[in-house]
Amino acid sequence: MKRNFYWCFLIFFLNIGDISGLNQPQTVNVPKADKYEPTWDSLDTRPIPPWFDEVKIGIFLHWGVFSVPSFGGEWFWANWQDDDPDGEYVKFMEKNYPPGFTYQGFAKDFTAEFFDPDEWAELFKNAGAKYVILTSKHHEGYTLWPSKYSFGWNVHDVGPNRDLLGDLAQAVRAKNLTFGLYHSLYEWYNPIYLADKNNSFTTQEFVDNKMLPEMYEVINNYQPSVLWSDGDWEANDTYFRSTEFLAWLYNDSPVKDVVLVNDRWGIDIPCKHGDFYSCKDRYNPGVLQPHKWENAMTLDKSSWGFRRNASLSDYLTIEELLETLAQTISCGGNILINVGPTKEGTIVPIFQERLLQLGSWLSINGEAIYKSKPWTVQNDTLTSDVWYTSDGDKNVYGIVLHWPDKSVLQLGSTVSLFSETSPTVSLLGNTGNLTWNVDSDQGIVSIELPNKSTVANQWAWVVKITSS
Amino acid sequence: MKRNFYWCFLIFFLNIGDISGLNQPQTVNVPKADKYEPTWDSLDTRPIPPWFDEVKIGIFLHWGVFSVPSFGGEWFWANWQDDDPDGEYVKFMEKNYPPGFTYQGFAKDFTAEFFDPDEWAELFKNAGAKYVILTSKHHEGYTLWPSKYSFGWNVHDVGPNRDLLGDLAQAVRAKNLTFGLYHSLYEWYNPIYLADKNNSFTTQEFVDNKMLPEMYEVINNYQPSVLWSDGDWEANDTYFRSTEFLAWLYNDSPVKDVVLVNDRWGIDIPCKHGDFYSCKDRYNPGVLQPHKWENAMTLDKSSWGFRRNASLSDYLTIEELLETLAQTISCGGNILINVGPTKEGTIVPIFQERLLQLGSWLSINGEAIYKSKPWTVQNDTLTSDVWYTSDGDKNVYGIVLHWPDKSVLQLGSTVSLFSETSPTVSLLGNTGNLTWNVDSDQGIVSIELPNKSTVANQWAWVVKITSS
Amino acid sequence: MKRNFYWCFLIFFLNIGDISGLNQPQTVNVPKADKYEPTWDSLDTRPIPPWFDEVKIGIFLHWGVFSVPSFGGEWFWANWQDDDPDGEYVKFMEKNYPPGFTYQGFAKDFTAEFFDPDEWAELFKNAGAKYVILTSKHHEGYTLWPSKYSFGWNVHDVGPNRDLLGDLAQAVRAKNLTFGLYHSLYEWYNPIYLADKNNSFTTQEFVDNKMLPEMYEVINNYQPSVLWSDGDWEANDTYFRSTEFLAWLYNDSPVKDVVLVNDRWGIDIPCKHGDFYSCKDRYNPGVLQPHKWENAMTLDKSSWGFRRNASLSDYLTIEELLETLAQTISCGGNILINVGPTKEGTIVPIFQERLLQLGSWLSINGEAIYKSKPWTVQNDTLTSDVWYTSDGDKNVYGIVLHWPDKSVLQLGSTVSLFSETSPTVSLLGNTGNLTWNVDSDQGIVSIELPNKSTVANQWAWVVKITSS
Amino acid sequence: MKRNFYWCFLIFFLNIGDISGLNQPQTVNVPKADKYEPTWDSLDTRPIPPWFDEVKIGIFLHWGVFSVPSFGGEWFWANWQDDDPDGEYVKFMEKNYPPGFTYQGFAKDFTAEFFDPDEWAELFKNAGAKYVILTSKHHEGYTLWPSKYSFGWNVHDVGPNRDLLGDLAQAVRAKNLTFGLYHSLYEWYNPIYLADKNNSFTTQEFVDNKMLPEMYEVINNYQPSVLWSDGDWEANDTYFRSTEFLAWLYNDSPVKDVVLVNDRWGIDIPCKHGDFYSCKDRYNPGVLQPHKWENAMTLDKSSWGFRRNASLSDYLTIEELLETLAQTISCGGNILINVGPTKEGTIVPIFQERLLQLGSWLSINGEAIYKSKPWTVQNDTLTSDVWYTSDGDKNVYGIVLHWPDKSVLQLGSTVSLFSETSPTVSLLGNTGNLTWNVDSDQGIVSIELPNKSTVANQWAWVVKITSS
Repeated sequence: MKRNFYWCFLIFFLNIGDISGLNQPQTVNVPKADKYEPTWDSLDTRPIPPWFDEVKIGIFLHWGVFSVPSFGGEWFWANWQDDDPDGEYVKFMEKNYPPGFTYQGFAKDFTAEFFDPDEWAELFKNAGAKYVILTSKHHEGYTLWPSKYSFGWNVHDVGPNRDLLGDLAQAVRAKNLTFGLYHSLYEWYNPIYLADKNNSFTTQEFVDNKMLPEMYEVINNYQPSVLWSDGDWEANDTYFRSTEFLAWLYNDSPVKDVVLVNDRWGIDIPCKHGDFYSCKDRYNPGVLQPHKWENAMTLDKSSWGFRRNASLSDYLTIEELLETLAQTISCGGNILINVGPTKEGTIVPIFQERLLQLGSWLSINGEAIYKSKPWTVQNDTLTSDVWYTSDGDKNVYGIVLHWPDKSVLQLGSTVSLFSETSPTVSLLGNTGNLTWNVDSDQGIVSIELPNKSTVANQWAWVVKITSS
Repeated sequence: MKRNFYWCFLIFFLNIGDISGLNQPQTVNVPKADKYEPTWDSLDTRPIPPWFDEVKIGIFLHWGVFSVPSFGGEWFWANWQDDDPDGEYVKFMEKNYPPGFTYQGFAKDFTAEFFDPDEWAELFKNAGAKYVILTSKHHEGYTLWPSKYSFGWNVHDVGPNRDLLGDLAQAVRAKNLTFGLYHSLYEWYNPIYLADKNNSFTTQEFVDNKMLPEMYEVINNYQPSVLWSDGDWEANDTYFRSTEFLAWLYNDSPVKDVVLVNDRWGIDIPCKHGDFYSCKDRYNPGVLQPHKWENAMTLDKSSWGFRRNASLSDYLTIEELLETLAQTISCGGNILINVGPTKEGTIVPIFQERLLQLGSWLSINGEAIYKSKPWTVQNDTLTSDVWYTSDGDKNVYGIVLHWPDKSVLQLGSTVSLFSETSPTVSLLGNTGNLTWNVDSDQGIVSIELPNKSTVANQWAWVVKITSS
Repeated sequence: MKRNFYWCFLIFFLNIGDISGLNQPQTVNVPKADKYEPTWDSLDTRPIPPWFDEVKIGIFLHWGVFSVPSFGGEWFWANWQDDDPDGEYVKFMEKNYPPGFTYQGFAKDFTAEFFDPDEWAELFKNAGAKYVILTSKHHEGYTLWPSKYSFGWNVHDVGPNRDLLGDLAQAVRAKNLTFGLYHSLYEWYNPIYLADKNNSFTTQEFVDNKMLPEMYEVINNYQPSVLWSDGDWEANDTYFRSTEFLAWLYNDSPVKDVVLVNDRWGIDIPCKHGDFYSCKDRYNPGVLQPHKWENAMTLDKSSWGFRRNASLSDYLTIEELLETLAQTISCGGNILINVGPTKEGTIVPIFQERLLQLGSWLSINGEAIYKSKPWTVQNDTLTSDVWYTSDGDKNVYGIVLHWPDKSVLQLGSTVSLFSETSPTVSLLGNTGNLTWNVDSDQGIVSIELPNKSTVANQWAWVVKITSS
Repeated sequence: MKRNFYWCFLIFFLNIGDISGLNQPQTVNVPKADKYEPTWDSLDTRPIPPWFDEVKIGIFLHWGVFSVPSFGGEWFWANWQDDDPDGEYVKFMEKNYPPGFTYQGFAKDFTAEFFDPDEWAELFKNAGAKYVILTSKHHEGYTLWPSKYSFGWNVHDVGPNRDLLGDLAQAVRAKNLTFGLYHSLYEWYNPIYLADKNNSFTTQEFVDNKMLPEMYEVINNYQPSVLWSDGDWEANDTYFRSTEFLAWLYNDSPVKDVVLVNDRWGIDIPCKHGDFYSCKDRYNPGVLQPHKWENAMTLDKSSWGFRRNASLSDYLTIEELLETLAQTISCGGNILINVGPTKEGTIVPIFQERLLQLGSWLSINGEAIYKSKPWTVQNDTLTSDVWYTSDGDKNVYGIVLHWPDKSVLQLGSTVSLFSETSPTVSLLGNTGNLTWNVDSDQGIVSIELPNKSTVANQWAWVVKITSS
């Protein structure tokens, strides 16, 4: 753990300097071991490519055949098949489909007829996101690219008849966003996988003939800058040959200098190994983490895949989203915001709205986010819903989630900043400096916010404290 | 015109008094002619049932087979068939359907599997709406109830296999909302209608065997409190036998005491006859009208039916909706806010959000809307985006669409209120009275609004001026 | 009854003479009453157009939306809806369709993509048929022409998007075959009909607004030479206004000189009134009838509509078909042989085979069929499966259904022919005369048939006895 | 060639003896090499299991996703994809499906809802067939069993949701018929195969990870008695590892003692190696073959898969079928008669009829077929459409395809049989012996057939010559 901590520290400082060209992933400039060994000890020594920490905000897209029933979420197949006879999935199928209908029968209706990748990319850019991660293959096994190893169960053979992954990658990159992909190590109902599982993973037929060939294919062909692995809970990393794969990825792949992976590479690996940690879904620890991490969360609180019957109350409000963002960034995380496209290829307006609200907020307050480093304190001791970031230099940012009573913001953690020098305080988006005073006895800094009617932001605000 | 004006004036005052039980349509208490004659002269003498003016806000629902292609809008069929060969509708069909596919072929997929009328009614109630109008039959001819006269082309015979209209009527009434229905006089492609049309409307086979029987059926069976007619531009009211029908509706129908109709009953009838005038789509004259009217508008700026590929920018913002509301109510209109349900039977979250935003606004500011009467002035002479209503007694309401500079609201039209007595001024939703002063020379009243950080409303505000 | 008998007799002799141009229906040359009255007494006086008796063999086609489920037969809808919950139709739907699927939902799949009316007509011609009768509308109500009165439930609006009836009529006539049509007076689930029925047929809304307009339309537009009515058992002819319609048909319609109708015009009408009697399905009385009649039968013994899961054993053999033919023609009937086309628009090979087997038989033996008159005896008193026809002059034909033991045919009914003169006897298709002798004591004529190896026919044979 | 000839000769005599229990495949009783080597030299030494030659008649079934479009035949996919833009397949798709529709999209409609394997087996038994061969996987790659190696593209995952192969195997065996299966070595559009092909077959990824695992699986799980390989023309047997596989099949598989394979194992293998030779489709050499062979032919002259729009003229007549049968058996072949089931799971009546006609013929004449050996002469030198078989002992059978003029059959090849002894001659199905005489000068035997009216057979006859 100690090692990680210092390493993390090192990264933060190494990264300072060149932060131009954020959207184009940067290569690692530090010297690296000649070749990484296929062991975690060796792999863990790799410095993570700095671009990732600098961009902070990504879009996650769960899209697949599950977008056709679009009921319950992306785990539809497993929930249906494993459901008790009175379960809601079984009932949904009984009500709406003939007996004997199979999951693969949905694929034909995955039409994506309205899919316009340029529009999507424009939306993500306007949301202030800097990278985009698409489910190249979820647990269902259907690949969103024309995989050589998934005959009859990919985007070319049945459904949209189009390389959804390739088309999106191109459009995303054309907007100077970084493209990455999600990949599920296992497949719920692939009989070759199930045979390995039935053999207590003493065989690796699935890994050798399906999983790995497919991973090499998708990496080589589409060169993603992030590989977001999933399905780790099913088997050990030795079964998945995770370290061998990562050694190739780091040493020899076309993305070796730029790629990052998360930590879901087998049982007991999450939160321990990987370029960044995603730990568990919606991971948001609320305290500073010693290792780079990412909060993968979703605007539909109950699902990653699109649900046709979701209600407004199922979606995060913009206030909730900004609160999650503030907590995440403050604690050193990236945020990966998921939306579920429809089978038609649209991103529905409620998602557009949240993303564009975020984008409008970031257009004013992005300074406190993108290039930020964690500050020494994460959330204020006195006003606990103020979350701090810094530029690693003279500026500290306080993200204020609730407008304070009488417009006076009282902070408990910044006294030192004010006691030594006389910093300048401002509200991002407003001109002029704010008046403040310090009650040294109480250890309280009071900042007088502007008249709210002059403030552009509606949902959250950033106070910038610049030490002289 | 003069007659109408005074009559309108009369209505407004007659309606004062009993305004209890808003949601349950009230019967007309004034004496009425023994029997209305089937002439406009006679029909126009009917006082309109007062409940309508008291409720102000309705929900309009465009739902039908057009919700299946859900492309372009509810005029899909006509646009497709009449389109030039390179038109977008023709291209949509060529891209997504086999040649020879017919419009009626869509009906099978009008499944409504998620339709929960109670949820819909709850949503409309929470939106602050008081009545709900459903397309019982749009120009396509498909009936949303199991019409006896539309064999094979109704909600029972093909599609949801359920009485959508009946189920919604029941749910809406259970929430104490008033139920009405839209009905298209003509049907684009009904060959009987087309034959009449081809005969220059010298025959009335369609009217006598299809249209009128169906109208009697739907009125008798579902007893709507509003009959919202459409299709007037196609033929004269003599062809449609409009006055005969209305005489029956007013004299003998089960809803004779409560029902209102709009004005779309034939060529040259709109804006001239009917209980309330809808004139044209999105009618919003901006000046006080001598006759009760209704602004039928829609949240999707381009369509009444749901469009699967609509973008966020196609929808009104809540600010735009409130502006329209203010203008409409101020000028004596009702507002009928349209949303398009999906073929699955859902009302998508972006619609839910707008409606619930409206509802939250009305929960504070409804006093200025529901029971209001037009004031002597509609929008302020100085600050033109302040729109007035009144309670017909001591209170005048100014609906403020933009928070004024320095939080001081300057009004030009209310000087007289302030010069004679010393009114009390408040902001709805805030406690305490507001400070004001009058510059008699300039004819300006300046009202100091509260500190904005204490104000609940985000999008528009209501200043209440109470004369002593 | 007596009247009919003589009238029938009259017809047979009147028809002798001009029998050229069989395939083009002939007009009636006998003087007729100026105008038929709308009474059976008057209508019954009409001489039937002679072409019908001269052609003898027609093809019946049951085609419609029932061809889509193609299960159980053309009564699928009624059997399903009226079935007990464990019935085979209910089970079929439960097994193969989602709950709530409606019958009208089938129509979209009535594609007729392989329909080639010229091929059909060629097949019917090669079968030896002279007229073709198509279900213009079965009890389901779906019309096979673009009916003005069946909006949304006809061949143009949903399904093949093509005028199946018109296209077939044209193709049939191009092959010099006569075209007629079947029409159901009632419609199982037309709510307007059901309302009349519920009113004990005291109302006639269905008849006046749907049934009759549609009948006029289809007669005027397609000018069928046969109108084959059905559904008679539901109501009295007064409800259906049958006599009024027939008076128009006989007096004023474009087919007044050529058309024939059957007898299914109301309760208690079949076998009593009409140009020819069809009495009941598969009517085959086995004795000479006093009135022209028709045996409407079907090659699938269990169904008129095509059944996808029918087995070979469900179809008549060619021997059974020829037996039915012999019995029917011998007793003065026409035979109307039904085949059920598929939803794809094909007539399946087993039907083709039976029809072409019939055609090959008729190419040799047609002389005994087409122009034939009933003989004084129908089937032989000694060898009962020999059926007689005559040419009304010197020739008597004996249709032999089983090759006799030792190739010697013994006849009991023809002694008189042999005792008076010395007739020539031959076997149709073979050259040369046959040897015969008469045992006057026993009343037996023995005819020595040719060596069977020289005989072309396999399934039945015709002995021709020509009196000198 | 010489080796084969003697080996073949050996087989014929070895097989004589135990011919009981025809329907249950017999094991080979002769000693065999300890282990066959994976070389053709070694494999070719294996004696073929004798049951095969004794049963003579099999049913071939081409069933798969191609049964859904059911247009053109089982090569639909390849013909469509490789077609020129104006080709009939492209036109068919353009006319009937939306653009972008993929072949895999058909699978959902492969419903097999009427599939009754017991009925099928009963039909095949009544046809006189002794074995049944089903396409376990055609070139499309879709497997008719739930293959572990064909995830998403098999009978369990999409379509009938039922083990069609397993269910048929069980039903067939329950009727004492032998079950075998067809298997395609390659798959048109499997990208792994195409990659191997693109590498000029220097890689064998497809063979090792897909083809062979699947072959082991299907053999082990279903234990077919015939493995009918196809696709040989694509690559060499070394690519397919054919000899290795066959060595396993012969040495170690659960069917090692009973199974036979055909000869389609790679380029230049057909007609050279294998237990029996199928050479090319509809192989019917007309002369005696030195090696056991099979004539795989089909009742639809143009297709192996069912074609919805096939006409009667596309099907073989029973006379044509019997002619092919006679030629085939006479020359030492088996006949494998193909029918194409429908996507619904039926075998259409025209197929049923041909099969049952065959069965009725065999019920009389099977003696000349099932247990027969080739005779010294195949077809008669004088009457060339008489084909001979023998029982390998005293009986020679002459299959007569056309009834001779004057019922006297003249034979040129049997003089020796009549000159040495005085054989008994009879017609199968008729009692009594036939009169004959020999013209030794001309070398003609004349046999007087019975009066044809006493003969049961219609289409072909068997004269049996029993030497004393």
